[in-house]
Amino acid sequence: MPHIDLGNDQPGIRSLFFYRPETAGPLCELVEVLLRGPSSLERWERELIATHVSGLNECVYCTTTHAAFTAAQLPDGLGLEHIRRDLGAAAISDKLKALLAIAAAVQQTGRNVTAGLVDAARRAGATDLELHDTVLIAAAFCMYNRYVDGLATVAPDDPESYAGRAKVLVEDGYLPIVDAARAHKAAQTA
Amino acid sequence: MPHIDLGNDQPGIRSLFFYRPETAGPLCELVEVLLRGPSSLERWERELIATHVSGLNECVYCTTTHAAFTAAQLPDGLGLEHIRRDLGAAAISDKLKALLAIAAAVQQTGRNVTAGLVDAARRAGATDLELHDTVLIAAAFCMYNRYVDGLATVAPDDPESYAGRAKVLVEDGYLPIVDAARAHKAAQTA
Repeated sequence: MPHIDLGNDQPGIRSLFFYRPETAGPLCELVEVLLRGPSSLERWERELIATHVSGLNECVYCTTTHAAFTAAQLPDGLGLEHIRRDLGAAAISDKLKALLAIAAAVQQTGRNVTAGLVDAARRAGATDLELHDTVLIAAAFCMYNRYVDGLATVAPDDPESYAGRAKVLVEDGYLPIVDAARAHKAAQTA
Repeated sequence: MPHIDLGNDQPGIRSLFFYRPETAGPLCELVEVLLRGPSSLERWERELIATHVSGLNECVYCTTTHAAFTAAQLPDGLGLEHIRRDLGAAAISDKLKALLAIAAAVQQTGRNVTAGLVDAARRAGATDLELHDTVLIAAAFCMYNRYVDGLATVAPDDPESYAGRAKVLVEDGYLPIVDAARAHKAAQTA
C-alpha cells in the first residue's frame, strides 16, 4: 500500500503522475527524449539500459515495465530472457555491452564511471552523445526507481497488464499520460 | 576533465545543459517545480534537502551549489554550517528533521523508506504532499548527482562563483539557463 493517499488506483509511477501532474510533465518529457527521441541508439537498446538499471535497483515495477517495453521492440531473433540471463554472452553489440557496463557503474555512483569504461565503449564505437545519453538514462532511472519504491506504489502481479501497456507505449510514447493525469486532477478538484 | 567533449566551459551540470538542451528543458523544469514552485515547504528547506542528499552522494558540485542556494535563502539567525554540522541539534523544525531522514533513506534506496519514517514525519506535521515532494527531491538529486559526476564535469574551486550563481538563482530561478543553452547550441550549429 502506498505511503500516502494518492487518490487513484493506477499502478506504479502512473499513480504518482496522477497525484502530482506538475512533476509528471517534466518526468515524462525527460524519458520521452531519452528513450524515444532521435538517437543513434535503437529504442530497444535504450529500454534495455533502463531495464538493466531498474533491475540493479531492485525496482519490481520499473524492471517489469521496461522489460516489457524492451521485449515489444526487440529485433526478430533476439530474446530478452536470453539477453538478461547472460549479458556477456548475449547476441548484442560490444558497444551496447560497454554502455550497459557504464550504466551499471552509474547505478552505484557517478564517480564509478572511469576513463577506462569510457575508453572501452569508445573503442567499441560509442559516440560522445551515446555516452552522454547512457549516463543520463542510468541516472534518471536511479530517480524513477527511488520515486516508485520510496512512496511504496503498487506493482501489479499479472504480466498481461505490463504487456498491454507496452503495446500502447510503442504506439504513443510516454507523453499521453500527462494529459490523462491533468484531466484526472482537474476532475478531482472541480 | 569531462569524459566527453562538451564544447563549452561552463561548470558542473551547466556544461551538460549547454551540451544537450533537449534534456536540459525537462531537467530544469523538474527542479524549478520541486524547489521553487508553490509549496508549504520553504525554498530554503527544499534546498537543504537537495544539499543533504548531494552531500550523501559526495557530489562536490551539487553540494556546494545547493549549499550556496540554501544559505542565500535562510531566515535570519540560522547558519547553514551550524545546521549541517549537527542536524539533530540544529534549530530547524522536527518536521524538517523527519523529512531529511526520509531523504537520506531514499538516497540509499527507495525501499528504505519505512512506514515508521513516514509516521514519524506525519506526527511532526508533514502533509502527504510534503512527503511526496521530499521523496521526489531526494530521488531527483540521486539523478542530478550521478549525471554530474558520471560525466566527470568540472567543479570550480572558488566559493565566489557559487555565491554569484546563488544570487542569480534566488532572483530568476532554474529556467533561464535553458534558453541560454538553446542559444549556445543554435550558435554552435549555425
